Amino acid sequence: MLNEVQRDRVEVVLVSPRNPLNIGAAARAMANFGFTRLRVVAPFEAHWREARSAVGAPELLRNAQECATLVEAVAPGTLVVGTGTRTHRKPEQPVVLLPTLAPRVAEELARGGRVAVVFGAEKRGLTREDLSRCHLLAEIPTDARQPSMNLGQAVAVCLYELTRLGTGGAQAPASADPQPPAESGTLDRLAEVIEETMTASGYSPRIMRVANRHDLRVLLRRLHWVETDAKRALGVFRRILWHLRSSGGA
Amino acid sequence: MLNEVQRDRVEVVLVSPRNPLNIGAAARAMANFGFTRLRVVAPFEAHWREARSAVGAPELLRNAQECATLVEAVAPGTLVVGTGTRTHRKPEQPVVLLPTLAPRVAEELARGGRVAVVFGAEKRGLTREDLSRCHLLAEIPTDARQPSMNLGQAVAVCLYELTRLGTGGAQAPASADPQPPAESGTLDRLAEVIEETMTASGYSPRIMRVANRHDLRVLLRRLHWVETDAKRALGVFRRILWHLRSSGGA
Repeated sequence: MLNEVQRDRVEVVLVSPRNPLNIGAAARAMANFGFTRLRVVAPFEAHWREARSAVGAPELLRNAQECATLVEAVAPGTLVVGTGTRTHRKPEQPVVLLPTLAPRVAEELARGGRVAVVFGAEKRGLTREDLSRCHLLAEIPTDARQPSMNLGQAVAVCLYELTRLGTGGAQAPASADPQPPAESGTLDRLAEVIEETMTASGYSPRIMRVANRHDLRVLLRRLHWVETDAKRALGVFRRILWHLRSSGGA
Repeated sequence: MLNEVQRDRVEVVLVSPRNPLNIGAAARAMANFGFTRLRVVAPFEAHWREARSAVGAPELLRNAQECATLVEAVAPGTLVVGTGTRTHRKPEQPVVLLPTLAPRVAEELARGGRVAVVFGAEKRGLTREDLSRCHLLAEIPTDARQPSMNLGQAVAVCLYELTRLGTGGAQAPASADPQPPAESGTLDRLAEVIEETMTASGYSPRIMRVANRHDLRVLLRRLHWVETDAKRALGVFRRILWHLRSSGGA
């Protein structure tokens, strides 16, 4: 998990981004996942101004640091992580798949380091020269038929990966439903009233033999009722039954 | 891991997307992570045409299916997953954090189901009405100070999460239930016939207002029906309804 103090020691570095929309999208993803430190290397001046002055541009974009070179941008980093997709062939750096990156980053931060996560320009990505400034290359596991990602989306996916553990993802059992499950007795009462309703609806008695009662009980248990829902269903069937009996003159 | 055959049973559903760039970005993220089935609900016509005809639009965007309603779009789904960020308060559906979603999806696919992952429109996200068609809500763990994500980035992050396990993470749990889960369309038909039965049983029209219809849909999805059981229930309610109408002289 990266807590807030740790995220403050992670720098996102964009190398020569061209598209103001992509710059804005990268900054927004940073804000979404709680990162604040952005550095931009040799941006195209006009586009960079446009991105920074866009309506709704997050504060971190206005506070971004402009650097002339990647060397300067990553200078404070103790672990510099280049990013790429499957387009990179034979990089010289150790390659880690993105899903395994977080522990490596957490370890670096735990020992007091600073991490820079570096994204290449649209189209060409990080050059061999850029990568020579990186300790390792994190590879986003994209599909071989369409490997190349949009910059803003690549930043979102990488930062999501770095924070997903912090949400308890690894440990948390998916405690989906906090409501108390139905008691067996409620389900049995429900089975009874459904059977009576079916009988009152003119189902032949043969339908309601032992085997079918059994099926009904099994079915009700397969449905994972919570107690309040089962009671609600009980109420509905009682009402239907009452109506059937009174209108049918039984 | 979701293999190619499994991904082919996952549908990405965009509800009324407005921005052609976002539609394109969502389609691109799908191609990046190997998903091909896109459905778009009630798109703004001009923007939709623009997105589809954009230079470099992936094939899956040209093959996307247009649906008039979300009901229609998710009808084949046996597990319908709404997506959102921390902006959603108190949803009625079970909530799972995105980092815990993949095993649930893999399990559904392993038992022969079909999964729909639903994204709301830019700005407002999925409405309460939309969510009543979903079995669960997957929450992207964004920062409380800037929770709202860009659509294309949200799609990228969710699909990345669904495929990252394929790179050596946890395995999908063995399937407990071999029976194919109920299709969303079956549950909608069941909701209708239950409502008709309740009306025929003399429930006041007030009971069957929008709010209660909504509750009924949510309840049915909470129950995890298998298709054969849902069809059986449909048969039982149709029979009861027929009996109510003929005996009541309606």
